Amino acid sequence: MTEFPKDHNETANVGGIAADRLQSIVDRYIRLEEEKKALASDQKDILTEAASAGFDKKVLRQLIRIVQTKDKDALETQETLLDIYRRAIGV
Amino acid sequence: MTEFPKDHNETANVGGIAADRLQSIVDRYIRLEEEKKALASDQKDILTEAASAGFDKKVLRQLIRIVQTKDKDALETQETLLDIYRRAIGV
Amino acid sequence: MTEFPKDHNETANVGGIAADRLQSIVDRYIRLEEEKKALASDQKDILTEAASAGFDKKVLRQLIRIVQTKDKDALETQETLLDIYRRAIGV
Amino acid sequence: MTEFPKDHNETANVGGIAADRLQSIVDRYIRLEEEKKALASDQKDILTEAASAGFDKKVLRQLIRIVQTKDKDALETQETLLDIYRRAIGV
Repeated sequence: MTEFPKDHNETANVGGIAADRLQSIVDRYIRLEEEKKALASDQKDILTEAASAGFDKKVLRQLIRIVQTKDKDALETQETLLDIYRRAIGV
Repeated sequence: MTEFPKDHNETANVGGIAADRLQSIVDRYIRLEEEKKALASDQKDILTEAASAGFDKKVLRQLIRIVQTKDKDALETQETLLDIYRRAIGV
Repeated sequence: MTEFPKDHNETANVGGIAADRLQSIVDRYIRLEEEKKALASDQKDILTEAASAGFDKKVLRQLIRIVQTKDKDALETQETLLDIYRRAIGV
Repeated sequence: MTEFPKDHNETANVGGIAADRLQSIVDRYIRLEEEKKALASDQKDILTEAASAGFDKKVLRQLIRIVQTKDKDALETQETLLDIYRRAIGV
């Protein structure tokens, strides 16, 4: 998927550096960076639309973090413990 | 692009919350998060392969940041200034 | 507190830059950075000792964030809302 | 420095938790956090005053990072390499 072109005819060689290959590395990396930014923008849109529909953005982010948590048992243990700590110091 | 489904028949309503809609928001957000992670993993692969080809990962990251810089004139001004500062204090 | 020395006799002037002043700025900034690192290390020690005493580090960090929260009413509203969202989608 | 008080008479015990000790842990952690914030604020002041004196904040930050770099030889090698890469792809 992120392979280097194998049949690529590297013409330029600047200062012992395969310039074409370097350019290709940089270009592919930046293209992926731009795709990530587009996805992050889509995520922002989802939250904006959710807010328009009456949902709370901050709470949605907390909810999403919970859904993403793989170890639900560990999560529950932590929540119980947090509750005990909170009651102990009254917050 | 990240629109909410319009003809969606929301059956569940829990505690005054449109549960189906909430589930949909969360699912779409998380799917985008996973796509971002896949892209980040591809970027990591590119750098790993570049390292195998003899390039320096850390320097590649610096190079990529330079290529991504839109205002090249401002960049050049900063580089000149940094050079002056460095010579002034001898580092 | 972070004033520049006023009666400072700047002897060196490299490339139009007041070298002594630049050196002083950098030194004072870095000294503060080191003090911050020492405090962060003290914080780490506190959590390590708390862990030895049987407290859970991760939960302690969550507790500390709650104590630091200024607007306790807003916090409570968010917690109630999160609870509603969680029940709605069953997590 | 970050020791737990040894002669501390823990009176409260809530849900099996030594409440006094927990409160002390949290208080000391937060006090250090506040001290860190004060230092960060002092650092900001230094940069603001430096900017008033004609220095460029962004370039100062880059300079500070260079001064903080322990391995100056590795830094020089990276700078040389970055220069080669830049010339290779013409940025």
